[in-house]
Amino acid sequence: MPVPTPDTLATVLRHVDASLEASRGRLFDLLRIPSISAQPDHRQDCLRAAGWVCDQLALLGFRAAVRPTTGHPVVVAHHAGPAGYQGPHILFYGHYDVQPVDPLELWNSPPFEPQLVDGPHGKRFVARGAVDDKGQAMMFVEALRAWQDVAGGIPARITMLIEGEEEVGSPSLEPFLIANKDELAADLALISDTGMWDVNTPAISTMLRGMTYAQLTLKAANRDLHSGLYGGSALNPINALTRILGDLQDADGRIQLPGFYDKVKPVSNAQRAQWDALGFDESVFLGKIGLSAPSGERGYSALERLWARPTADINGIWGGYTGAGSKTVIASEASAKISFRLVPNQDPNEVMEQLKRFVADRLPPGATVEYEGHTRTPGIEVNIDSPWVRAAQAVLADEYGKPAILMGCGGSIPVVTSLRSVLGLDSLLMGFGLDDDQVHSPNEKFEQACFHHGIRSHARLLAKFAGG
Amino acid sequence: MPVPTPDTLATVLRHVDASLEASRGRLFDLLRIPSISAQPDHRQDCLRAAGWVCDQLALLGFRAAVRPTTGHPVVVAHHAGPAGYQGPHILFYGHYDVQPVDPLELWNSPPFEPQLVDGPHGKRFVARGAVDDKGQAMMFVEALRAWQDVAGGIPARITMLIEGEEEVGSPSLEPFLIANKDELAADLALISDTGMWDVNTPAISTMLRGMTYAQLTLKAANRDLHSGLYGGSALNPINALTRILGDLQDADGRIQLPGFYDKVKPVSNAQRAQWDALGFDESVFLGKIGLSAPSGERGYSALERLWARPTADINGIWGGYTGAGSKTVIASEASAKISFRLVPNQDPNEVMEQLKRFVADRLPPGATVEYEGHTRTPGIEVNIDSPWVRAAQAVLADEYGKPAILMGCGGSIPVVTSLRSVLGLDSLLMGFGLDDDQVHSPNEKFEQACFHHGIRSHARLLAKFAGG
Repeated sequence: MPVPTPDTLATVLRHVDASLEASRGRLFDLLRIPSISAQPDHRQDCLRAAGWVCDQLALLGFRAAVRPTTGHPVVVAHHAGPAGYQGPHILFYGHYDVQPVDPLELWNSPPFEPQLVDGPHGKRFVARGAVDDKGQAMMFVEALRAWQDVAGGIPARITMLIEGEEEVGSPSLEPFLIANKDELAADLALISDTGMWDVNTPAISTMLRGMTYAQLTLKAANRDLHSGLYGGSALNPINALTRILGDLQDADGRIQLPGFYDKVKPVSNAQRAQWDALGFDESVFLGKIGLSAPSGERGYSALERLWARPTADINGIWGGYTGAGSKTVIASEASAKISFRLVPNQDPNEVMEQLKRFVADRLPPGATVEYEGHTRTPGIEVNIDSPWVRAAQAVLADEYGKPAILMGCGGSIPVVTSLRSVLGLDSLLMGFGLDDDQVHSPNEKFEQACFHHGIRSHARLLAKFAGG
Repeated sequence: MPVPTPDTLATVLRHVDASLEASRGRLFDLLRIPSISAQPDHRQDCLRAAGWVCDQLALLGFRAAVRPTTGHPVVVAHHAGPAGYQGPHILFYGHYDVQPVDPLELWNSPPFEPQLVDGPHGKRFVARGAVDDKGQAMMFVEALRAWQDVAGGIPARITMLIEGEEEVGSPSLEPFLIANKDELAADLALISDTGMWDVNTPAISTMLRGMTYAQLTLKAANRDLHSGLYGGSALNPINALTRILGDLQDADGRIQLPGFYDKVKPVSNAQRAQWDALGFDESVFLGKIGLSAPSGERGYSALERLWARPTADINGIWGGYTGAGSKTVIASEASAKISFRLVPNQDPNEVMEQLKRFVADRLPPGATVEYEGHTRTPGIEVNIDSPWVRAAQAVLADEYGKPAILMGCGGSIPVVTSLRSVLGLDSLLMGFGLDDDQVHSPNEKFEQACFHHGIRSHARLLAKFAGG
């Protein structure tokens, strides 16, 4: 296969356009598999999703296998690309697992029965995983398929790494990378799990927040108590937990963990000026979700708060009687799940220790606290001065007719850290999600226009890497 | 039937002793009916329990009926007593409904399969409702049965009022009392739903705390959000709820609702001295439930805090993701159930308004709050200088060989207020529960010794009222 010409690319893009319905159909097949990694009763579904992805890659000529881990399996697939290929070896990372679906009653359609519905930007796909990350990962697969179908084969040397534990913090991935370091060697990592600036404006994410996620349980009496008999004497662990967690932020939204901000780097003036120039309207952003006022740390712009400042969010809380009516109980324990979004330079393990100290300093006499750790991943900055970022900028400009925004991303993609630390790879984060995609929420969706442009952009990027 | 002699009473008491196993068997039949008033799917069970109680009273010669209300039915039964009866007309109040059983996994045996097990005070009955209030109500029924069986009939004029909504705040009872005021006229109300000082020391409760119980839901965005995309900008309702509720008490345990203490009467020095003389050891009281330090309002003795000071307890809290593992969600809402134990003179409706003001003063911009009201009942003091209290003191001294303690009771018995306000009745609260009965908790129990002494004490009280 020769170096692709503009004509070859044009043929491929036409085929992408003509195959959109078939591409969507394959994505819908994958979306029908309820591969919820957090829930043990979906273990078989995760395995099925892995098998499905593996089969697709094998059909494209990849040497593909479902590889066991201590958790859900990883799909690894290799393709050498055309004979004499001179371009970079691409490691494409994605994940086939999805978030839990509750509260189920808020979905307009069953989360694992993908729907094609009309929206303000045309058709959209509604299902759990529509955008995060099945839809985005399948864009790359479909781009490969178009090359395979009409341009004589896969145009680049590619390793696929599709994991099944991203939504639970990728506990098995780093050990897997370490154990298979030589096999996974590449020149860059390519990931589509991030967002665009808006539906018409492409973006490359260059700053990702990290995370420390912990669950804590505050324990008091050794059994539930009648509040009439014990109220006024026995410690109420729910009161105590709210008292401690109510202190997480001060009135200015500053997080009160001791030393929490010590390593937080301020955003450069240049970066701030670039973001300010984007004209982000926080009241519109929040208005779409029914909020009339911003929350968060006082003294920072919205994009700084979303992309470059750490946060403390209680993601879940429970304790005592939560059924219908009233029960005058003093519970024996109360629990919460808390996540801290971290910025580059903050150490997620240190933050965990800071949380423990913060709680210990406020723990009332007679109470004990137990922790269960989940994700701990640092925030990172992507090197924006790489040939890969420049290639993606050129490709996106061709596809959308306007330059891509270099933006921060509030969420964490732990694998980016592991890919750098274990495999030495820079990541190129070219994503096609939108702010209103309801990621992790009921009625998650993916715009068909984004899916379509995403396949085309990946097809273009493959041409670029192949020297076209 | 003549006025009972000491010999008659002795015969009755011997029969009580000889019938203990049969009495227990009948109680166990009632305990097998899962009459949980708070849970709509137990409506039929409540009806069955009412029917069971009604049948028992009919067997004793009462004119008994299950009477409908807007909620669970009330059992009302009348007996005129012996011809020429000169004593007081007794209204006995009890309830056949029980609390929910969760957390079910903490029960050592199924809550509605009553068990006879060994304990430090001999045999005990373990089941939901064992003491509260099926066991205590059945003591009186069994005392009546003994009189009926061996002494020629029911010795006093009695109206039975056994309701099915005590555990949900008795919403239908007061309307029922009002609608049937003439039929329910009596000279005193007799209630066994309180406790003893300890297993060897009887007590009459003379001070009961009231309650304001509310459920509140704090609402923020119109859907669940991904904390990576929105964290730092969107209000987190769980953070906000903990911030508000964490403020309920100050560092000294003083409740921060505006005006909350304005109407709280201090305990008299005489009352405080009497309670201090009881030598209550709070560290032993709390040690039994695994707590090493007291909680509550600084500057008051334990018994004052338990009996005569108001409290604020969060009975339940929930919001966000509470399943296994981690989910980085910002929830759209968070809820809590809160109860305030009130002392005489506090107005439960005012406290509800104080709670609303307290929350409104702290509500962050963009959040809304919704309330669901439950119980609102004032605290009360029983008149201790009545012939009924004196009769009960004499009876308990005979039965136990030591005087009864006049004590406070941390819990509320809303009906006491209604019996006074609607029917003009003083209540005599002669109860046989113990602090460690695990009322409202898993493994609720009732000591057989308490049940036995309770039946005997009621048999004695009936003799006393009949002029014996």
